[in-house]
Amino acid sequence: MPRLASLFPIADQLSSYSRDALRGDLSAGLTVGVMLIPQGMAYALIAGMPPIYGLYASLVPLVVYALFGTSRQLAVGPVAMVSLLVAAAVGPLANGDVNAYIGFALLLSLMVGVLQFGLGITRFGFLVNFLSHPVLSGFTSAAALIIGLSQLKHLLGVDIERSHYIHEILIAAGQQIGDVHVITLVIGVGSILLLVALRRWLPMIPGALAAVALSTGAVWAFGLADAGVNIVASVPSGLPSPSLPPLDFAAAESLIPSALAIGLVGFMESIAVAKVYASRHRYEVDANRELVGLGLANIAGAFFSAYPTTGGFSRTAVNDQAGAKTNLAAIVSAAIIALTLLFLTPLFYYLPKAVLAAIVMVAVFGLIDWEEAAFLWRVDRKDFALMILTFFATLSLGIEAGILAGVIVSLIVVIYQSSKPHTAMMGRLPGTETYRNLKRNPNALTDSSVVIVRMDAGLYFANVNAFKDLVAKIGVEDEALEALVIDMYPVNTLDSTGVHTLGEVVGMLRRQDVDVYFSGVKGPVMDVLKRAGLANTIGHEYFFHEVHQAVEAAEEKSSTSFGELNTSSREPAEA
Amino acid sequence: MPRLASLFPIADQLSSYSRDALRGDLSAGLTVGVMLIPQGMAYALIAGMPPIYGLYASLVPLVVYALFGTSRQLAVGPVAMVSLLVAAAVGPLANGDVNAYIGFALLLSLMVGVLQFGLGITRFGFLVNFLSHPVLSGFTSAAALIIGLSQLKHLLGVDIERSHYIHEILIAAGQQIGDVHVITLVIGVGSILLLVALRRWLPMIPGALAAVALSTGAVWAFGLADAGVNIVASVPSGLPSPSLPPLDFAAAESLIPSALAIGLVGFMESIAVAKVYASRHRYEVDANRELVGLGLANIAGAFFSAYPTTGGFSRTAVNDQAGAKTNLAAIVSAAIIALTLLFLTPLFYYLPKAVLAAIVMVAVFGLIDWEEAAFLWRVDRKDFALMILTFFATLSLGIEAGILAGVIVSLIVVIYQSSKPHTAMMGRLPGTETYRNLKRNPNALTDSSVVIVRMDAGLYFANVNAFKDLVAKIGVEDEALEALVIDMYPVNTLDSTGVHTLGEVVGMLRRQDVDVYFSGVKGPVMDVLKRAGLANTIGHEYFFHEVHQAVEAAEEKSSTSFGELNTSSREPAEA
Repeated sequence: MPRLASLFPIADQLSSYSRDALRGDLSAGLTVGVMLIPQGMAYALIAGMPPIYGLYASLVPLVVYALFGTSRQLAVGPVAMVSLLVAAAVGPLANGDVNAYIGFALLLSLMVGVLQFGLGITRFGFLVNFLSHPVLSGFTSAAALIIGLSQLKHLLGVDIERSHYIHEILIAAGQQIGDVHVITLVIGVGSILLLVALRRWLPMIPGALAAVALSTGAVWAFGLADAGVNIVASVPSGLPSPSLPPLDFAAAESLIPSALAIGLVGFMESIAVAKVYASRHRYEVDANRELVGLGLANIAGAFFSAYPTTGGFSRTAVNDQAGAKTNLAAIVSAAIIALTLLFLTPLFYYLPKAVLAAIVMVAVFGLIDWEEAAFLWRVDRKDFALMILTFFATLSLGIEAGILAGVIVSLIVVIYQSSKPHTAMMGRLPGTETYRNLKRNPNALTDSSVVIVRMDAGLYFANVNAFKDLVAKIGVEDEALEALVIDMYPVNTLDSTGVHTLGEVVGMLRRQDVDVYFSGVKGPVMDVLKRAGLANTIGHEYFFHEVHQAVEAAEEKSSTSFGELNTSSREPAEA
Repeated sequence: MPRLASLFPIADQLSSYSRDALRGDLSAGLTVGVMLIPQGMAYALIAGMPPIYGLYASLVPLVVYALFGTSRQLAVGPVAMVSLLVAAAVGPLANGDVNAYIGFALLLSLMVGVLQFGLGITRFGFLVNFLSHPVLSGFTSAAALIIGLSQLKHLLGVDIERSHYIHEILIAAGQQIGDVHVITLVIGVGSILLLVALRRWLPMIPGALAAVALSTGAVWAFGLADAGVNIVASVPSGLPSPSLPPLDFAAAESLIPSALAIGLVGFMESIAVAKVYASRHRYEVDANRELVGLGLANIAGAFFSAYPTTGGFSRTAVNDQAGAKTNLAAIVSAAIIALTLLFLTPLFYYLPKAVLAAIVMVAVFGLIDWEEAAFLWRVDRKDFALMILTFFATLSLGIEAGILAGVIVSLIVVIYQSSKPHTAMMGRLPGTETYRNLKRNPNALTDSSVVIVRMDAGLYFANVNAFKDLVAKIGVEDEALEALVIDMYPVNTLDSTGVHTLGEVVGMLRRQDVDVYFSGVKGPVMDVLKRAGLANTIGHEYFFHEVHQAVEAAEEKSSTSFGELNTSSREPAEA
């Protein structure tokens, strides 16, 4: 069934299905399904939706992704980050009207799905490459803080207005410190302690479910709802019926930036985790097919009351650990959710919202990436600065502006750095045919009449001046110079401005009776030199594979010879 | 006088002044001064200013640049492109009020000067690197068209509303074809023919001055002004008196984008031509000091009725040809202009504007860069597309938006390309220790258990996926693989995302019992590996200078040996 398999990757997965795989899928599906019940409801709270919508979002999208997605372990469903983005996007539009809020969230899901599907079939999956690790890390840490603090009101049992500025939330919480509902706080903090303790000492017990069960039981047994503990209360039972998201074009227009952010950030999170497990289990995931799979999941979800979903980090880890071998595991999880919706919703009546808040807080504070920050500080100060910038931009400018600022600044930094490339003057390592930077190898041998240089960058418009400066310095200052060898192996690309510059430089040096030799010109660069006619103008006898061959050719014509010790007068500053 | 010379480069130039240099400077100064009189008035017309302001702009800025600039041949003054930008900026603000128009143009000069001065002392001269050759060429060609057509009304003697959209100008000209003033047209077209003919056959005669003299004489002798030929009429005599530009903050705010465009485009034109002549005469110009020099020229000019100026292409060429050796030449030119302003302005009474239009048109149509377009089409289709895009963006979106679009798109292309780097699997060229791309060298030797790969780009966030894809393909598909050699010499940079990726890849391959060897890791990249601790984790025994050394080390441990002919099953697609 090659055609069926190319449309539905799951057909391929099941064509060689084993009993062993079935056991793994059943176990994993059950585990993730049980985990999804409290998590889904908790994430719905982040999104500002009634908790039941977290379960709706854990149903249809899972099945659709299972049919079209290429990852076998990825657990799709509601996740914290996307939920936060949904709240940020829909909140300002709905004006406190719950039904409008839900409608806009479903519309957003449709838009995100169409966007992801469109990007996937037009093969725009590469866009995700521009989100760098430091930017994502800074953004995630900031979002984790915002998400965690957004749950503070449920934990304290007070009424804090929704805000994406942490100082506003903290000030509001401080002002209402006297109104804290103590029983709620005890339930919440107790749940946090339980979750942390179980994770550390008894990781096989599903902590969230245990906290939910214990606290629901306590609220019911001791009548704590009457004592003012905020509970989920009556939850409609039954599967979500198909419905059309509201096609409000004005709202859709204002949701476009959010749909873009959710579509790309959600995809980013999903593809990153999918690649980890694909590489671990030695199969391939395709970024564009993943976009199509997630897009279809969101489109279908929009018609079955699911707000935007994506593949989640922690649930995928659990899914894999519990033995998931194919997408059948996700279908089992969806079945668990379906059964819950059909028969178990009355059990959630006494579920205190503080427990859901505790689940969210424990989950997201683990996302604050202290280790990465320390690593970047040690390894790459520029990336550390980018992480910090994105972190504070997200806290101060807001979720979408923060990540956008991070992406734009990181691209500017790339361009800026490539305009100031590292250059080196090279000498021969004694006893070898290897040539290296004189700065780092002070023992390297030099020849006063043959100078060897290297520029560590593709030669293109933004750095031709750096190249000219490097060569001009050598040509102008040194009367003994007879030949220049340019090591072109690190020159990965050559654009038209670069060709003009190379031509000018060779012409200028030849007028000063300096021969120019090239070594290690690579295929794509040589193609450009040939098309521009410069390879012929220079003459093929000046091109060599290795630096040493070029140096030997230059030496033959030169009046001095190699072997003088490096006088170190010829070193350009190292960048 | 080291301190004086470091402030005033001219002091350094004059400290070794010769009689020969004086003769050159006098001759060049005279020639350029005579050339400036008609050109200045013509360019003032482009800027929408009364012609006399072209002479004012040729006075104080020349002297100030001569004192502070580092180029010895650069001829500063009004130029066509900047004049056009001035008209585009000031026109919408002035509402047809001539005095307001002049005031805003002087304010703009002050702003441009402050901007250039500020960028110079903060060493932001590198910004100019981001204007690529194709973008500048496409922009210049489009601006030449717009400038040339802006003079059509003077050539035809009809009233066409100022517009930066060529179709509007052409339509308006077509509608008024019946109103064309025939004598004006004859003078204009005759001047164009005279200029072209003199340039081709008698290049030693200053064509513009000849056309001005002949046509002014004809208008005076035959009373053509009364027949409806538009003339310059009475021109105030005397030097410009010092005055404060109007400090209108609202206007200043709306002029900011234009000041940026003029400051950078003007500087770009100036530094490009300055570098050409500096390299020809073997001295150096410094981008940041040039910015300071041009900035001071514009600031001082603003107080002496000069609209924004910069170093011009054609006048600098004439200056050099006529023998300019130092900035004294420019001071001589300024003296010619001063004498003209003091004593000769009555001579311009009968000067027909059609001649000035003819001078502009001949000058700018030479800027349309057909040859570069043909070159780019042959050498670099992407750069050709960028040139065409900038050309049409300038024509359709306007002057500033056009160049901005060109710059942004060219930067996006750079980033996009670096995210899809060229990669190669390599084999040994028979009889050598050189390793090259198997695709281009089908005779190269391979070993089924030792694979050698190369990625032609710095490893950073936007291309780590390309690197992973390259390695994953090899690791996953091939069970015979025992060692992977990564040629790191083309990897010019390594950021934190790249370090993470290298670590993951090495770990993944080692888990599959594949050793990973590195060759040619360069200093800056090795520094990052060391700081990240990865150099130790990998082990220093896996790092080698040359590919061949790494291959030999890998061969020692491997079960097969080098020398099999390339089976060509291992080649990745060439990008």
